[in-house]
Amino acid sequence: MDFCLNNIDAHSKARAGTITTAHGEIHTPIFMPVGTVGTVKAVHQRELETDIKAQIILGNTYHLYLRPKLETIEKAGGLHKFNGWNRAILTDSGGYQVYSLAANRKIKEEGVIFQSHIDGSKHLFTPENVMDIQRSIGADIIMAFDECTPYPCEYQYAKKSMELTHRWLKRCCDRFDSTEEKYGYSQTLFPIVQGSTFKDLRIQSAETIASMQREGNAIGGLSVGEPAEEMYAMTEIVCDILPKEKPRYLMGVGTPANILESIALGIDMMDCVMPTRNARNGMLFTSQGIMNMRNEKWKNDFSPIDPSIGGYVSTFYTKAYLRHLFVSGELLGGQIASIQNLTFYLWLVRQARQQIIEGNFKTWKEKMVVQVMQRL
Amino acid sequence: MDFCLNNIDAHSKARAGTITTAHGEIHTPIFMPVGTVGTVKAVHQRELETDIKAQIILGNTYHLYLRPKLETIEKAGGLHKFNGWNRAILTDSGGYQVYSLAANRKIKEEGVIFQSHIDGSKHLFTPENVMDIQRSIGADIIMAFDECTPYPCEYQYAKKSMELTHRWLKRCCDRFDSTEEKYGYSQTLFPIVQGSTFKDLRIQSAETIASMQREGNAIGGLSVGEPAEEMYAMTEIVCDILPKEKPRYLMGVGTPANILESIALGIDMMDCVMPTRNARNGMLFTSQGIMNMRNEKWKNDFSPIDPSIGGYVSTFYTKAYLRHLFVSGELLGGQIASIQNLTFYLWLVRQARQQIIEGNFKTWKEKMVVQVMQRL
Repeated sequence: MDFCLNNIDAHSKARAGTITTAHGEIHTPIFMPVGTVGTVKAVHQRELETDIKAQIILGNTYHLYLRPKLETIEKAGGLHKFNGWNRAILTDSGGYQVYSLAANRKIKEEGVIFQSHIDGSKHLFTPENVMDIQRSIGADIIMAFDECTPYPCEYQYAKKSMELTHRWLKRCCDRFDSTEEKYGYSQTLFPIVQGSTFKDLRIQSAETIASMQREGNAIGGLSVGEPAEEMYAMTEIVCDILPKEKPRYLMGVGTPANILESIALGIDMMDCVMPTRNARNGMLFTSQGIMNMRNEKWKNDFSPIDPSIGGYVSTFYTKAYLRHLFVSGELLGGQIASIQNLTFYLWLVRQARQQIIEGNFKTWKEKMVVQVMQRL
Repeated sequence: MDFCLNNIDAHSKARAGTITTAHGEIHTPIFMPVGTVGTVKAVHQRELETDIKAQIILGNTYHLYLRPKLETIEKAGGLHKFNGWNRAILTDSGGYQVYSLAANRKIKEEGVIFQSHIDGSKHLFTPENVMDIQRSIGADIIMAFDECTPYPCEYQYAKKSMELTHRWLKRCCDRFDSTEEKYGYSQTLFPIVQGSTFKDLRIQSAETIASMQREGNAIGGLSVGEPAEEMYAMTEIVCDILPKEKPRYLMGVGTPANILESIALGIDMMDCVMPTRNARNGMLFTSQGIMNMRNEKWKNDFSPIDPSIGGYVSTFYTKAYLRHLFVSGELLGGQIASIQNLTFYLWLVRQARQQIIEGNFKTWKEKMVVQVMQRL
């Protein structure tokens, strides 16, 4: 993996960069759609590429490990071959899902024992086997195995958890560095900063993570329920410590406003289920603001959904038709909204990048944060 | 509407023709995907046009009348404008849904009183207002208001019902002929042959319908549970009476084998929810046969779904990936299967047409009926 900075904003810490992977270039700042089990829900791979213009998507190690299981992914020749997505893929470590989905999980020094939420079968994730699993999935970017603390979190627990995450990181790096890429293209490992909402822990963790000198770094344990101000404060502290010349990935963020504010703090990569999950519930993100598609207001509004961002669904379908689909419980409603929301998120980060390059990011961001979050 | 016969098969009664509507040409024999409430479930309009290559789709009068309601469709400028489908649309009369979905329906000479399955509100469908409703929807082809008898059905009931359908037909024609097209393009009315599975009633009904001299004719009340042999027998009797120079539409049919056998009997148009409904349950129709996508058999089969019929999903996605989506309960599974099944149905009728034109239909049909119905 290679990363070069194309421009740094003069009035904020926002950066425009280019990540080069074995599966193409990623222009940062970038938003990464979440493809949990190897599919971005309700979206065709062709739509992801040509309409949404995604450059990298996520896969979830926990989900893929349980279904379709590694044997099938390996036989296919990796996840790219399995699902037909030829651009970059990042996999999370499975940690987050083990804590949020699995039953009877037990965290030990060795790793985490848990039961599958699908069939109750018992499994063990360790820093070592999670590296092996992500090697097998064939992710371009592999995440370290960590513990993601909940919010709120006692200081002592956050500290102990962070220290465990750091010990696990050492084991992740050892395993990753002593194993080979699986399918003939290079893979890279990102460590994850933890430390909950405690400034001193975040500083300590960021310094530890920076010292590992990996090709990119991530910030975890945020966007888990804490106030946005705390999230921004922690992000800023950590970004100031993490090396400038490497991409910074803020995990699980967020709303359109969160995206823009995080970019302003020096974040390069983000992911979140919000655009697709909220889409299926009829919530639309557009360049003009947020729309509840079940609202009576759109009943006879025959204007296109969001023409200024371009793309098929945003320009082709009308608000009235989309409302009708949601009111009637039609599958196509969720499909259209999912594409719209992701098209908008990718449009938003492309615009941000353009503004950074042109030197207008800060002014533009202040305006857009209000515009894209207003309720229409 | 205009219809011309391009070729008649020498060894069967199969015909190849061209229907010209205000929204483009339809090459027959044709299968018409069902777009109940103005959406072919789980399929984008772009996919219908470019991948599936649908030339005409159905809308359901009953559903559209209840949601989004006529006011919205009229304000949009008709269903084509409302849902963005610019090719031909046929609407059923609403009769079938009134009998199968609505509550407390009461059939009278005047029409049918029923309660909405959505909110229990009371409504009255008459031959007259059903013509007006379909005018407002803007269908290119409008269906007469009839009673569709269930199977099995007493002879006396079938006879009385058929006579009512004939009296209603007269009122439909009177209303249709005394009203104007709504959006500046011509609309046409198809009457419907009834008579259950009784030969004499079918003959009588076909003669009545033929005598109305409309631009096309339909056969209803079949594919409602009777053995396929009875359906074919009734279809043959009726086709021999209905005028050769006008398109014949067999309503609600059917499996790929039903489609081919009906074409052999002189049917030009067909529709059925089977390809989309079964798709959502994981049943795939392909040029090689029928597949249950949840079957363990496809787990590690990385070959494309059905490459020989062409089109995006048939060539792009693998059986193993599609199985994974169904096993994981992912929406994309139903989306892919819906497109595959419709792409296959449209491929099948295009092939049939080609074989009719080349004079090989009968031999080809005998082979294909077996091939496409085998369980893979």
